[in-house]
Parts: sequence; C-alpha cells; structure tokens
Amino acid sequence: MFEIISLKNGLDNVDGFYGGGVNCGLKKEGNDLAFIRSELPCKVSALFTTNKFQAAPIKHFKKYPENFESNFVLINSKNANALTGKKGVNDIEEILQTLKETNKDILNPIMSSTGVIGYRLPKEKIADGIKKFDFNAKKSVEAANAILTTDTFKKEICFKVVLNNGNYFHIAAIAKGAGMINPQMATMLCFIATDANIEKEDMDELLKEAVDESFNKISVDGDTSTNDTVMLLANGKSKVYDKEAFKFALKRLTQELSLQILKDGEGSTKVVAFEVKNAKSEEDAKKASKMLSNSLLVKTALFGEDSNWGRIASTIGASGIECDEEKLTISYDNITVYSPEVPQMDEELEKKALKVLQKDEFKIVCDLNVGTHSFTSFGCDLSYEYVKINADYRT
Amino acid sequence: MFEIISLKNGLDNVDGFYGGGVNCGLKKEGNDLAFIRSELPCKVSALFTTNKFQAAPIKHFKKYPENFESNFVLINSKNANALTGKKGVNDIEEILQTLKETNKDILNPIMSSTGVIGYRLPKEKIADGIKKFDFNAKKSVEAANAILTTDTFKKEICFKVVLNNGNYFHIAAIAKGAGMINPQMATMLCFIATDANIEKEDMDELLKEAVDESFNKISVDGDTSTNDTVMLLANGKSKVYDKEAFKFALKRLTQELSLQILKDGEGSTKVVAFEVKNAKSEEDAKKASKMLSNSLLVKTALFGEDSNWGRIASTIGASGIECDEEKLTISYDNITVYSPEVPQMDEELEKKALKVLQKDEFKIVCDLNVGTHSFTSFGCDLSYEYVKINADYRT
Repeated sequence: MFEIISLKNGLDNVDGFYGGGVNCGLKKEGNDLAFIRSELPCKVSALFTTNKFQAAPIKHFKKYPENFESNFVLINSKNANALTGKKGVNDIEEILQTLKETNKDILNPIMSSTGVIGYRLPKEKIADGIKKFDFNAKKSVEAANAILTTDTFKKEICFKVVLNNGNYFHIAAIAKGAGMINPQMATMLCFIATDANIEKEDMDELLKEAVDESFNKISVDGDTSTNDTVMLLANGKSKVYDKEAFKFALKRLTQELSLQILKDGEGSTKVVAFEVKNAKSEEDAKKASKMLSNSLLVKTALFGEDSNWGRIASTIGASGIECDEEKLTISYDNITVYSPEVPQMDEELEKKALKVLQKDEFKIVCDLNVGTHSFTSFGCDLSYEYVKINADYRT
Repeated sequence: MFEIISLKNGLDNVDGFYGGGVNCGLKKEGNDLAFIRSELPCKVSALFTTNKFQAAPIKHFKKYPENFESNFVLINSKNANALTGKKGVNDIEEILQTLKETNKDILNPIMSSTGVIGYRLPKEKIADGIKKFDFNAKKSVEAANAILTTDTFKKEICFKVVLNNGNYFHIAAIAKGAGMINPQMATMLCFIATDANIEKEDMDELLKEAVDESFNKISVDGDTSTNDTVMLLANGKSKVYDKEAFKFALKRLTQELSLQILKDGEGSTKVVAFEVKNAKSEEDAKKASKMLSNSLLVKTALFGEDSNWGRIASTIGASGIECDEEKLTISYDNITVYSPEVPQMDEELEKKALKVLQKDEFKIVCDLNVGTHSFTSFGCDLSYEYVKINADYRT
C-alpha cells in the first residue's frame, strides 16, 4: 500500500530538480523561456505527436541514441519551430551549443517548443534569455508560466508518494494545453520529473499506459499539433521505487492534468465525459465517443445548455458503428432523456436535464445495448470565445 | 450538342409539375409545409443519409416497392420526425391517408421532413395545412421557402435544356441546407423535378454520379444528419431525353445548389475550395481534403483571414496520409505561401496572401508532390454566428 500527498510548487519538491523561467522577448510580457535541470543525469521516456510533420525539437530529440541520459530541458513558447526544415533542427543545435558553453555540466540537452508554425526561432533572443537563467533556482511556477500560450492558468502538480515502510519519492509535472487538443495527443506539452529510482523499461511502459488513459482521451477541437510532447525524466535520487505506487501516481497525475487542460480549453465553459457503453466492440465505443467529443453540433448545443439529445443520437448514427434506435438510451448524468419507450421530452424532463447541463462538469451516457464494450472520452463545449481566440491567434 | 438556359421560378417551368407552400403553425411565421405534385406518375430515384438512425420519412419511403411511381411529395420543416420509432412512421401513414382523402388522384405519396430530432409530428397542424393547399398552384418559390430551417435564402434552380434538333426538356430543383452539412450528404433536402423522358436506370446512375460530384464534396460542420435526402422525380411529359445533356445539366444543377448551400452555411462568410493534389492515392487526397474542410482551427483562421498556413500544414500532417514537409507546397489561389525553399513568410507575401483571404471565394491548394492523385472538397469558415445559431437552435 501507499499514500499520495499533494504538494504545492510542482517540480520544486522533486529531489535534485531545478527549474525556472524568464522573458526573452518572444512574448511581449510574461515568461517565454523555461528550463528544467537535474543535478543527476536522468533516464528519459517520451511520447510525441502522431502528426507526420513533427516539429524540429522532436526531430532533434530523436537524433540522440536510444537510452541516452539528459539533465536539461529548454522550453520556449510563442514559436513552434515546426515546418522549418533542416534549418529548424540546425537552429536548435546552435542554441544548445550556446547553452552548453554557459553551463559546462549540461549533458545531452533537450529542446521543446510551442507556438506558431512556420517561423525560424529567434536564436539571439533565446541566447539572451539563457544568460538570464539562474540554474540553481527552484521556481517551478516560473517554468510553468513560461510554457503557456493561450492557456489562462498554469498547470502544475506534485505528488509525494509514501510507501508502507515510510520511504517516499516525488513525481511532479508542468504542462500546457489550450487549443489543438485532440484524442491522439494534443498541442500540449507535459514535462514530468521524478526522483523515484525507476528503470527505463518501466518508464516507457507506464508512461504509455498513463497517456492512453489521460491525454489520449481528451479533445478540445479535434486537431493534432506538430509539437505534442509528454516527457518523463527520472533522476533516481530518492533511491525509492515501487511499481504499483508509481503507476498509480503517474496515472492520477496525467489524468488531473488532462482535466486541467480541458477546463482551460480555448473558450470552454464546461468539461463533459462522453461515455458510450454496451457497444458491439471497443473500437465502436471509442469511435462514437470520440465523434461525440468532436462534433460541432454537440459542442455548440452544450455551450447553449440545450437539452437537444437529437444531436447526440444523430452523431452516434453518423459514426457508422453498430447501433439501433430501438435499443439506444441517452442520459445526462442519471437523467434519461431518450429511450425507445419515451421518445419525447416533456417540460418536467427538460427542466431536470437543464439542471445537469448547467453544471461545469457532467457525463453524457449513451447506452447502445448491443454488446458489452465501453469507452469514455472527455471534451468541452464550443463558445464564441473559441472562435475569437482562433480567428485572432497570431495577433 | 445542347444548350442550357437558366430560368427563374424553379419547378414552375417543368411541364406537368405543380408546387406550393403554406404555414400550418410549425413555424411562427413563414411557410412550413410544401408540396410538389405531378399530373403524370413519376419515376423516382432517391439517395438518403448514411446516418444509421434514418428518420421516419426515409423508413416510410423504403416501404414502397422498388420502381414504384409517385405523383406527390409532402415536405415539412421545423420537425425532423427522426428517432421517433415506429410511431413516427405510423404518423406519416396517417397524414398521407388524410392527404389522399383530400385529393383522390394522389398516387403513392412521399413525405420528407427537416428540423429538430426527437419530437412526434403534430398531425393535426399538418392536416390543417394540407387543407390550405391549392393543388393546381405553380408556386415553386413558396415551396422553396417552406422547406428552409436556418437557411437565410431560398435555393431554387431551373434549366431548360435545348437539344440540337430544337427539342427540349426542363430540370429544376428546390433545396435546403444550412447546418449539419458534411461530405457524406448533409442535413439537406433537395427535390429535383424533370419532364425529361428518362428511364429509371439512367436516373439512378446519373443521380448518384452527380451527388458524388456535388453534395458529397461539401462540408459546413462535419455532421451528417438523420434526414438527408436528394430525390429526382421524372414525369416524362416533354417526351424528350438525351443522356449526355441530362447528365451535364443534372451535375451543373447539383453543383450550383451545393455552392448555394455552402454560401448559406450557418454563419459562413466565405466558400473555400480545398484542393489536395499529387497525393499517393485518391483516398489520401480525399482524406486530407476533407480533414481540411472540417478542421476547426483552419475554419476559424479563415474567418479571421489569418494567413497562418501552419494550421493547414498541421492538418495535413495530422491526417495520417503519405506526406513530406520537404516536398509540400501550399498556395492561396496562385500565391505560394509555403514551399520547402521558402519556409518563412515576409511582410510582402503576407499582404498578397491577405488579399486572397479577403475574397468571398478562393482556393487553397496543397501540392503534396508524392504521387499523381487529386481531390477537391468545398468548405466554409466558422464564425461567431455559427456558434450563436447552434447554441440557440431550438429557441
């Protein structure tokens, strides 16, 4: 058994990790350049976007040999360094060379970027920013702020995991989300640091499992970015490790961050779980659930708090999965709004449904009644604000 | 050879066809119930939604034997009669029974509906409406208005097709579109009437071909409705037919209506052609093209007239098709905004791009340069107005 304690100030609690952020002129104000440093070399496990046009930082990461160790991550916002060709990768190499000259202890530094696609990194600004770093800072909050784009709040989590025998380790993360958030890993960056004494094999296995159960289940707008990255860095400094405890903590950490990202989805006002159950196959359940979380008509109806379950039914029908209107049941939380017996809503039922729809978080359950498989994905509504943010993104 | 002449007043020109519309209280004001009648029995060819939850009128249509003939279509807006189970089909049978009592000449009447899902048809209102019909009216415009929902203008077309020998026939249509418009036939109804002396076999073949080249290439919001219907009624009254001429006219008619539907897409301010060319396979070209026309980030950028080609590139990368950033070229009309040689936009290029983006209609060309296959689909931008219309749809 084990106990999980939430701590403030994210990465700062993880033994041997340092972090901070500065403004180097990419954003007009606020931090735009962050670092995460470990005093011991870290094993690194990372998952990247499924987008075929992977950004330059991802290409650069992949040039390192398998099982390489690193003690430094440099992250900038405002510029994605994507679709910048070989020059984009060269730019990273130059920047990291400068970085190594500033601090001789840096081993195999990693770079990560988020922002607008198609522009070269302003190398001089970033070099100036690096000069401003205090490499011994424990200022996770400044790093968490520096990686944000259209996010409206910072995303930072830390757990202290205490085992039965009193030994403990930490696991912490900073993340950014906002737009381009889609079930196949979104425009999101997430850096997880741990002092647990975990092996690379377990890192790879547990990170994939956790991401499948968290980031891969959320959608803001169905778009998948060129830069998505989830990275786990482990320096082993606590000398403590327990697989079950680590697995549990990592899953909880990524799930909490996923919900924070959804809550902060561009212009979103509510987070909705789309549970499709009793489907013929898991694939069917997943397909319908993800179509619901991405349907414009469903998302706008949620924003309007419209109890119009017809759009939900129509989306399920349009998904092409095995379904039968004589067997389907649709509920908002525990309020059944459609079943073959009651195909028409009355005023009282509308009122009950509206109460659920007015909540910040609720569940839409579609019981297909044609099999035994289920899948839940998470989405948000679509508001005027989303359109505004994305029509004006670069300005 | 043949000549095509556009005529006003849609269906009214087609020999032996009558049509009109009335208000029966489904809408607060404006027509909500329409009919199309032919003095001769018509051969009927129809294509329906791919949505698995097909609306009651579609189920009712399918109860007629293959190759049945009909001389009457009754259409209501405001209520889709979808997800209403067997009762929904019974309601249609009752309504059409009443209709036949009003007019003994009616043969195998067809019903079609559009509007909100999940409510039973108000049979009495519709029966009252039927009593108001003037069965000998030639008022296509009233029918065209009665079938609209959130559309902002009526959609009506008529061509007179004159063959080389001076003989001619007519082909005309009324349609509605607006929301739920997706490449696999959208919440759209389209009724095409012709006095050409066409055989059922040709009707089926040419209708499918024309729909694939028109309605199946457009998208407003990627949602596919329960009620989509394109129907061709032919009464043969002109005694004239020429396959090539009919094929050409039908294609042109459906393509013009498709563009009208896109222009009237809920809240849309521009119509954009997404051409993906030199793809490895036709499937790849189609997949990427349709993902572009449905991407929220692309659609909002178009509304914002943002020359951010990064979202276009990112969507292509996310589509999972064969592509290579070293080979990709992206143009707005004839302005190349991205090619591997010029990965960064300067101010002058931005200005040129902006001029294209400010147009009401333009083309985005993505040249993948990895094969020989092409596909073009048509979409529109996403504005505040779309969110407003769909958040408030039922009120």
